[in-house]
Amino acid sequence: MSLTDLGEFGLIGRIRKRFPAPEGVTGIGDDCAVIPQRSGQDTLVSTDMLVEGTHFLRDRVSPFQLGWKSAAVNLSDIAAMGGQPTATFLSVALPPDLEADWMGEFLRGYAEISARFGAALLGGDTTASPDRICINVTVLGECPAGAARLRSAAQAGDLVCVTSTLGDSAAGLKAILEGVETDADIQALINRHYLPLPRVAEGLRLAATPGVHAMMDISDGIGSDLRHILEASGVGAVIDVPALPLSPALQRTCARLGWDAAALATGGGEDYELLFTCTPEAEKMLDVPHTVIGTVTERRSRIEPGMTDIEWRGAEGPVAGFDHFKRQSPV
Amino acid sequence: MSLTDLGEFGLIGRIRKRFPAPEGVTGIGDDCAVIPQRSGQDTLVSTDMLVEGTHFLRDRVSPFQLGWKSAAVNLSDIAAMGGQPTATFLSVALPPDLEADWMGEFLRGYAEISARFGAALLGGDTTASPDRICINVTVLGECPAGAARLRSAAQAGDLVCVTSTLGDSAAGLKAILEGVETDADIQALINRHYLPLPRVAEGLRLAATPGVHAMMDISDGIGSDLRHILEASGVGAVIDVPALPLSPALQRTCARLGWDAAALATGGGEDYELLFTCTPEAEKMLDVPHTVIGTVTERRSRIEPGMTDIEWRGAEGPVAGFDHFKRQSPV
Repeated sequence: MSLTDLGEFGLIGRIRKRFPAPEGVTGIGDDCAVIPQRSGQDTLVSTDMLVEGTHFLRDRVSPFQLGWKSAAVNLSDIAAMGGQPTATFLSVALPPDLEADWMGEFLRGYAEISARFGAALLGGDTTASPDRICINVTVLGECPAGAARLRSAAQAGDLVCVTSTLGDSAAGLKAILEGVETDADIQALINRHYLPLPRVAEGLRLAATPGVHAMMDISDGIGSDLRHILEASGVGAVIDVPALPLSPALQRTCARLGWDAAALATGGGEDYELLFTCTPEAEKMLDVPHTVIGTVTERRSRIEPGMTDIEWRGAEGPVAGFDHFKRQSPV
Repeated sequence: MSLTDLGEFGLIGRIRKRFPAPEGVTGIGDDCAVIPQRSGQDTLVSTDMLVEGTHFLRDRVSPFQLGWKSAAVNLSDIAAMGGQPTATFLSVALPPDLEADWMGEFLRGYAEISARFGAALLGGDTTASPDRICINVTVLGECPAGAARLRSAAQAGDLVCVTSTLGDSAAGLKAILEGVETDADIQALINRHYLPLPRVAEGLRLAATPGVHAMMDISDGIGSDLRHILEASGVGAVIDVPALPLSPALQRTCARLGWDAAALATGGGEDYELLFTCTPEAEKMLDVPHTVIGTVTERRSRIEPGMTDIEWRGAEGPVAGFDHFKRQSPV
């Protein structure tokens, strides 16, 4: 059945059935969702758009994976503040000839990860697109008043840390784009690209730890993302490139295929790990698995405009970030 | 200057400069916006997507108008609940060769209507699109706990009312699509299409009036929108078609060009007026300009699936609504 046969309200009916509203909340089906507030909490909001041809290719990613990832990248923004996701809002623009099954699978992936992190789908928009699929998710979350970890809170003397490992998603993307034959390692890397796991529990624990200062999630690669923390905080950093945490799958794959693991770990995006700074004392107390990758420094007094105050120690080549209008690698 | 030259972070910098965050709020520039809550309030959230080729044609609508309308249709959803808009979040997918000036004009329109209704732009996403512009706005608002006017609250015996006049936007769209020569009336109709004014003040006053029950904004035409209220409330309605409020500009234009004013007023969308039901006693007390267009009835016991329980008295032809996957009229 095509979307034209199902109709807009048929589609909304299916979505509504799959995502019932929590008790006390007005969800899908009115002009707005109505969410009662808990006093003493701050509301967190973030939004992300995925466009076919820029962020994904319809024949490469399964609708389940795309639904999962659409929710995951947004939930990750709440994790990055140290918050608890509460609700999401999903807008989809779909070509009328798209199979209704495609959307069913998309919703299955979206529902699976949303349920895992306790986020209710409370509304959205369904509309037609002449050709490309376009997806926008807005996520709401909450945290105790004043507890959100901002990018601007890094202090000279802090350690720079990351959760888990870096570069897997970028290596998975590279494997997809280059058509590398799939083995267990390649499959693990591709899964990290298509089915990222936002670090919500880790973010909550980090935000509850005194001395954890700036925090963000890694979506564009630490080469780009760390720059945001440093600029917002008015500080610099020294990063120890050989200390970057690399998964065994990434190390084996890079050794086998001659790929540059450090370049993937610094320049590749979409890891959705947490990048944070904390005092050396706090670092000793952390109950979240992490790796120390460098140190926050005073900002060097003279730095050219557009240059970033990061010293990459032990790097063999230049380290780049990601700009959506300058470089594109869809999948 | 093209967007490629400006770069993603150049664009974000411009947006951030134009939309500074209100005191006490963390806006653009972190993973999430952080919005302190006022206890005793309900949070309202809605989201809407506009896709080039479905909702607008780039060579027909000015970027100022599109920016205005993108914000307006979302603010209207807050108005439809009887809430006060507080914040918006803007996602844009832009072709890299788009002139940066286009986006500047878009933001000027977006800023002008946002300021008029007190809504701060607190975040968003900027990304590349291979070809078509895609825009998604999420709006947050608030109202006293329990005060939001839902679609499900209509009661048999209520009067059905609308603010201002119907059909102007649809007539403006028709004039654009048919290339009708512009006179003062046509220009007024086109302005209603491109520069709609959300009825925020009216919605707040209506929600503060006891006896005002169901409320929504008219985006798809009352033929479709009223159906949502009736289905959500489990009631029917009788609408007096000759009572539908028509602007002098619409009446004159329809007389001159032989257009069907009633069809435009019932089947055409994007008026962004408020459609509401209230008790006859409440209607006498209203301090909001409005027109009574019919009555809510008990639901007829036997009604065919898919049929709507609306009796259109005095209608000369069939009355249709709008389904995004079935009929499209871009501009």
